Amino acid sequence: MYKHKDLLGLKNLTAAEINFLLDTAVPMKEIISRPIKKVPTLRGRTVVNLFYENSTRTRSSFELAAKYLSADSINISSSSSSVAKGESLYDTARTIQSLGADVVVLRHPMAGAPNLLAKTVKAAVINAGDGAHEHPSQALLDLFTVREHRGEIDGLTVVIVGDILHSRVARSDIWGFTKLGAEVRACGPPTLLPPGLEQTGARVFYRPEDALVGADVVIMLRIQKERQQQGLFPGLREYARLYGLNRERIALARPDVLVMHPGPINRGVEIAHDIADGPASLIEEQVTNGVAVRMALLYLLTGGGANNEADY
Amino acid sequence: MYKHKDLLGLKNLTAAEINFLLDTAVPMKEIISRPIKKVPTLRGRTVVNLFYENSTRTRSSFELAAKYLSADSINISSSSSSVAKGESLYDTARTIQSLGADVVVLRHPMAGAPNLLAKTVKAAVINAGDGAHEHPSQALLDLFTVREHRGEIDGLTVVIVGDILHSRVARSDIWGFTKLGAEVRACGPPTLLPPGLEQTGARVFYRPEDALVGADVVIMLRIQKERQQQGLFPGLREYARLYGLNRERIALARPDVLVMHPGPINRGVEIAHDIADGPASLIEEQVTNGVAVRMALLYLLTGGGANNEADY
Amino acid sequence: MYKHKDLLGLKNLTAAEINFLLDTAVPMKEIISRPIKKVPTLRGRTVVNLFYENSTRTRSSFELAAKYLSADSINISSSSSSVAKGESLYDTARTIQSLGADVVVLRHPMAGAPNLLAKTVKAAVINAGDGAHEHPSQALLDLFTVREHRGEIDGLTVVIVGDILHSRVARSDIWGFTKLGAEVRACGPPTLLPPGLEQTGARVFYRPEDALVGADVVIMLRIQKERQQQGLFPGLREYARLYGLNRERIALARPDVLVMHPGPINRGVEIAHDIADGPASLIEEQVTNGVAVRMALLYLLTGGGANNEADY
Repeated sequence: MYKHKDLLGLKNLTAAEINFLLDTAVPMKEIISRPIKKVPTLRGRTVVNLFYENSTRTRSSFELAAKYLSADSINISSSSSSVAKGESLYDTARTIQSLGADVVVLRHPMAGAPNLLAKTVKAAVINAGDGAHEHPSQALLDLFTVREHRGEIDGLTVVIVGDILHSRVARSDIWGFTKLGAEVRACGPPTLLPPGLEQTGARVFYRPEDALVGADVVIMLRIQKERQQQGLFPGLREYARLYGLNRERIALARPDVLVMHPGPINRGVEIAHDIADGPASLIEEQVTNGVAVRMALLYLLTGGGANNEADY
Repeated sequence: MYKHKDLLGLKNLTAAEINFLLDTAVPMKEIISRPIKKVPTLRGRTVVNLFYENSTRTRSSFELAAKYLSADSINISSSSSSVAKGESLYDTARTIQSLGADVVVLRHPMAGAPNLLAKTVKAAVINAGDGAHEHPSQALLDLFTVREHRGEIDGLTVVIVGDILHSRVARSDIWGFTKLGAEVRACGPPTLLPPGLEQTGARVFYRPEDALVGADVVIMLRIQKERQQQGLFPGLREYARLYGLNRERIALARPDVLVMHPGPINRGVEIAHDIADGPASLIEEQVTNGVAVRMALLYLLTGGGANNEADY
Repeated sequence: MYKHKDLLGLKNLTAAEINFLLDTAVPMKEIISRPIKKVPTLRGRTVVNLFYENSTRTRSSFELAAKYLSADSINISSSSSSVAKGESLYDTARTIQSLGADVVVLRHPMAGAPNLLAKTVKAAVINAGDGAHEHPSQALLDLFTVREHRGEIDGLTVVIVGDILHSRVARSDIWGFTKLGAEVRACGPPTLLPPGLEQTGARVFYRPEDALVGADVVIMLRIQKERQQQGLFPGLREYARLYGLNRERIALARPDVLVMHPGPINRGVEIAHDIADGPASLIEEQVTNGVAVRMALLYLLTGGGANNEADY
């Protein structure tokens, strides 16, 4: 059972709750693999995508998840007026509530913004990324993808490589994989690793050659050029040389290693072309699974599954 | 009965017509208070939101009103190409008509633009704000909100405080409340009151302390910083001190006074925090009622209610 | 029958294939002329409009075509993040595929981009304009419009006037009209005519007075001010004087000449007011026919019409 009103992060969920969310995504994936990808389950429910940062992938994924379940959805982005006029998140939230929102999907540059929103509105709030804090639906799709391929997460070695410091995906992944029993290794340049990382349960590595040994799963993170201007890493070419996933490095992992990336990928930087398109890569499956996971979230947070009736 | 093709403003409507619009919004509000907010009434009808100015609130409200009635809707904004390419409103209108629009919702910086549009297309046109002229759906939701709380408008004292000069909401509110029998008091700095205001039927006040005495309803308007640069008022702090609605001022009104604001609000400027969130405030109800009123407009202007059949 | 996975251009289609597409648009036009413009044909199918250039008209037309057929559709534009983050078209395409797209409608500044996309994804790709290369759905609507008024294309004289060099519409029109048996005359200033134009099957004219003699159809193209800065024509007034369609020039064509324009029109430049609004003008009908043609494309490319069952 998932008894929370919202999904704000994985840090405060139990393994049982996470598994329940993943279980609910299984029949959702079945729905979107049909030629007619549509069920009437959420007819008459309203999803508002409130994005204070652009994100084609995440917004499109939630938008389609809503449509496949027949919910109504609208998009509100920071370029639109009330937000530009400097209305507070509190007042915007109250307005969206009053418009009839059942679920608000929030992407916000400030860590903790979804928690504030969740206290403000009766609607369910899904954190679609807040600052460098959490991005739980992305971690859930990562968990779903690994579980689908390996059966279970428990006992696996999961390596996350890149800019852990600025990555909300890394943070949510660490909570999620750790809670489900995996060993998580966080690897990156010292300037891109947050202090106190060990306290999250992750083991810290500075060289991918060390981190990748025996890995079941490798999650590569996108490196952003802005970090170079901030002096946090020397350059894309240098980064690729030291941290990029290529044929030599992947050979250190287990032969059946799974390669993942939250996208969009920098080909030739954090991941080599032949690895991104290779047989170990699950990057495209992740996108599909993201829709399934978000359908499960919309379903559960609007009261679906409260009894065990299968109404989808 | 509402026999016009369009809704361009309240100035030229009769009290009976306005009341009919408000009556039609009553069952619409009932629909959106259900868990399943969806009826098939406008299935196969097309609503085009044509916005030459940004407005998250108004656009979202019309968009959801259309969805709750199962109409198809698309958004066209001034940032998009044909409009940016300088196509005339006339030609844009003809194009939208030819795409199959049944209703065009127009927000435009130029007063009178909706009237031009209405003559150009067979589709129904709803004025969603034209320059400083009218914003009839906002006034209708204000009327609806007051009527819901007071039973009727006739005999009430309604005070509008702020930048009346630049406010299309104020203008539509003055027409609407006056036609339904209320006394309307317009109050603001002399520089922000239009000449000839008395001819609209409103009484003019310069000090809220005078205007608020015995008020049943107070409508606070948003003050915009740009007006300060134009020299029309001395500053936000000074404005708050002289015109902001606070505990002292509201005590001058009737004990059961209703406080309204079209939003987005400037907390601590035209309205104090504790008033905005206090028991007299109907600001959030206004948003919900806005959806109900817009559903009624979409319904009536696409031919609904022509006979007395209740098909929603 | 139309057996291709995609619609990339008219150059490589046969006359029979083009006629089949046009035939399929006939019942679609019937649907959108009903008061209830909606059929369940594409329920559960997903259309992604991927626009790397703005285009209100084309995007709205595809969006409504999808809605009238009950397909789900989402819009992704170049201002959104992944695209702005510089993700390759290849990776964006794979992502869109994985989200569940059945059809991707692509507008791109680079000629050939839709062909690349079509090889990348299993989804059907519709070219909605690629550089100065092709814009096949626009040409199909032009063909549909002429066929509707003249019965057939074969034997007609079709004159295209304007900036042929930069016009993807002109290119697709030339292929389409030529394949269906029309004589196509391309007319414009020498600086705005591409080299080798005769090899496409069109006859080249520099003076509209010559080209228009005996014309059954005149298609005027939009002239863009940027071309003046590039020194390609002397100015809008001069262009209007030399190439604009006015009463004198149109008198050279057949008395029942049809006047068309892909829009948005520059009134008083390439087309005089009284011609744009005159009885020969089919400009608005073109817009309606564009929706019908795009419905036919969405229908056929998602497997409709594979058997001869009429399920719409």
